[in-house]
Amino acid sequence: MNATAAPTSTSPAALLDDLPGPDSAAAAAVAAREAVLTKPPGALGRLEGLTSWLAAWQGRREPRLDTVCALVFAGNHGVAARGVSAYPADVTAQMVANFRAGGAAVNQLCRTFGVDLSVIALDLDRPTADMTQGPAMTEAEFGDAFHAGMAAVAPGTDLLCVGEMGIANTTAAAALCLGLHGGTAKDWTGPGTGVAGDRLTAKSKVVAAAVAANGGHGLGASGLTGLEALRRLGGRELAAIAGAVLAARRNRTPVLLDGYVTAAAAAPLAAERKDALAHCRAAHVSAEPGHRRLLDALGMKPLLDLEMRLGEASGAVLAVALVRAALACHAGMATFEGAGVSGRDAG
Amino acid sequence: MNATAAPTSTSPAALLDDLPGPDSAAAAAVAAREAVLTKPPGALGRLEGLTSWLAAWQGRREPRLDTVCALVFAGNHGVAARGVSAYPADVTAQMVANFRAGGAAVNQLCRTFGVDLSVIALDLDRPTADMTQGPAMTEAEFGDAFHAGMAAVAPGTDLLCVGEMGIANTTAAAALCLGLHGGTAKDWTGPGTGVAGDRLTAKSKVVAAAVAANGGHGLGASGLTGLEALRRLGGRELAAIAGAVLAARRNRTPVLLDGYVTAAAAAPLAAERKDALAHCRAAHVSAEPGHRRLLDALGMKPLLDLEMRLGEASGAVLAVALVRAALACHAGMATFEGAGVSGRDAG
Repeated sequence: MNATAAPTSTSPAALLDDLPGPDSAAAAAVAAREAVLTKPPGALGRLEGLTSWLAAWQGRREPRLDTVCALVFAGNHGVAARGVSAYPADVTAQMVANFRAGGAAVNQLCRTFGVDLSVIALDLDRPTADMTQGPAMTEAEFGDAFHAGMAAVAPGTDLLCVGEMGIANTTAAAALCLGLHGGTAKDWTGPGTGVAGDRLTAKSKVVAAAVAANGGHGLGASGLTGLEALRRLGGRELAAIAGAVLAARRNRTPVLLDGYVTAAAAAPLAAERKDALAHCRAAHVSAEPGHRRLLDALGMKPLLDLEMRLGEASGAVLAVALVRAALACHAGMATFEGAGVSGRDAG
Repeated sequence: MNATAAPTSTSPAALLDDLPGPDSAAAAAVAAREAVLTKPPGALGRLEGLTSWLAAWQGRREPRLDTVCALVFAGNHGVAARGVSAYPADVTAQMVANFRAGGAAVNQLCRTFGVDLSVIALDLDRPTADMTQGPAMTEAEFGDAFHAGMAAVAPGTDLLCVGEMGIANTTAAAALCLGLHGGTAKDWTGPGTGVAGDRLTAKSKVVAAAVAANGGHGLGASGLTGLEALRRLGGRELAAIAGAVLAARRNRTPVLLDGYVTAAAAAPLAAERKDALAHCRAAHVSAEPGHRRLLDALGMKPLLDLEMRLGEASGAVLAVALVRAALACHAGMATFEGAGVSGRDAG
C-alpha cells in the first residue's frame, strides 16, 4: 500500500469546500484531436467520452494511464450478527487473506488489465456497532476510517478503482441509501451474497430498523448531512471509500466506482456538495437492484451491465479495460490527413 | 493472413448440414469449478457464462485464449453511387491501407487486448452490382466471397472476432434485414457513417427499392433461402463474414460478432439453420438502431452497449477484454477450500 500523509486534523466536511474542477482546456484539446482521427465523428461512442473525462480530471491534454491503482477497503459490521448475509463474518478477514495471496477475482482482473492492487483492512476485529441500536460509528471511529481512506490514495495515480469487502455491507449500503434518498427499505435491499425469501424480508426489516434508530427516512431532508448519515449507517470501509474518492478529487485522479456498496459510500459526498463526484464514473451496474436506482439518483450511467455482484472492485477493474481501450485509440490512431483517407462528403 | 485450404467445391448451403454442437461435458466441468471458486455463486454474472461458452465450443474443460484473431473483411458496393454514405467509396481502400499501416481504431484495440489482426480486401476495384436493379452478386461472385471468408479462418484459433469495412454497407445490412425479417425499410435504416434528414430518408428508399428489386419484403417467408438473400442484398464482405462464421463453427472456434453489418451478414446462416450461430456471441450493440432490433430477432444479448458505431471489428475486439477477464478469473482464482475461506451459511 502506497500511503501518503493525510490531513488527519481536518474534518471531512471541511475538505469538501475547496475542490478542483475539470480542466476544460485539456478536454477541448482531446476533443479537437478526436475529430481528426480516422473514423466518423463520435463512432467510438462512450469510449470518446472516457478520454475527455481522463483529460479533464487529470488536467492533461495527453492523458496517461501509467499508474492505475485499485483500493479494496475491508470492514466488519455489528449488524452481521442479525443474519443478513449468507456468509459468516469471518469471511471478511479470510477474503482479505485471499486478496493478499492473489487468489480472488480482483487479483486476476488486476493482472489482466495492469492494475496495482492495495487492500486496506480496517479494524476487522472491531466490528462497527449494531446500527439497529444507534450509530454504527462514533465520530472518532468515522474520522479515522475516512482519513485512512484518504491516506490510501497515492499522489500521481492516473486512474483509481475503488471497491470493498465486508460481510453484511450491502445491508449498510441499503440503510444509507434509504437514509439519504428515501423510499422504502424494500427499494434498496437486495440479495447481497445470496439471501432470498424470508431471509431477504428479514434483511429489509433490519435496514428499516437501522434507519429508524438513526433519525428516520430521508435523513438529508430531515437536516442531517450526508457525512453524518455515513457515520450512522455506514461502516469503516464505506467511510474509507468516501475518503479515498475525496482524496482522489483533490489529487486530480479520476475514479472508477465499483458496485452498490461503493456507490452508496460515495453518495454522501454528493449529498454534501452536488458536484463532488464529477470526477467519478460508475464502472458497472450490478445485479443488486438498489444499485441501478442509486445510479439513477446520482445521474450516473454505468459503463458495463454484466449482472456482476461481487464487489472487491471487480467491476471497476474490469472497466479499466474500456478506459485503456479508449486512450489507446485516442493516442495511437492516425489522422485523416496523416493516413491519406478522404474526409466526410469528400469526392 | 493465415489462410487454410477451404472446400471451395462445396456449396455454402451444404456446409450447414453437418455442424458440431456444444461440448456439454466441457461446459459442465467448467461450471463445477466455477462453483468452488472464492466468490458467491454466480457473482461474476455474465463473465461466468463466457467461460462456459468457451469451454462448450472449444470442446475443452480448460478453455484457452492463446490465439485470438480478428478478421476484417472489406468490400465495395455498387449502391454507394446512390449517395447513401457520408463518405466516398474510395474510403474503403484507403481504410484498408490504414488497417495495414496500423493507424485505425481496431489496430489499437488489437494491440491492447492481444489480438492478431488480418484484413481481407475482396475485389475492391469491382464493386457489387447496384442492388436496386437486381442481385448484388452473381452466384459465382457470392461463392468466391463466401469461400474467401472460410479460408481466412485459421484452424487452431481459440477465439475469433469478425468485422468489416465497406462504404455503403449499412445500406446492404438494412436491405438484408428487411428481406429476411420483414418490417419497414425505416425500421432497419440508420445513419451509418452519419447521414441524417433528407439523406437518411433517401437511404431508406434505396433500401426499400433494393428489396423490391430482389423479391419483396420477408424473403424468408416468400421461399427464398437466407443465403440467397445474402447473395442478392449483401456484398462481398458480408458473404465472407458468413463464410468465416461457418468455418469457425466447423473448427470449434467461438466467435464474437461485431456490429450491425456483421450481425446482418451472419443472420442468413440462422435463417438456414436455427442453431447455426450458437457458437457466436454479440460483442456489443451499436448506436445503429437496426442492430438492437436484429439482435432481438436473433435472440442475442449483447455484452457491451457503448454507443459505438465504427465497425471494423472494433466492438468485437473490445469484448475480447471481457472474455480474457472471464477466463483469467476462472483459471486463476483460489477455491474456498484452498484459500481457507468459509463457505455459504457456514459458522
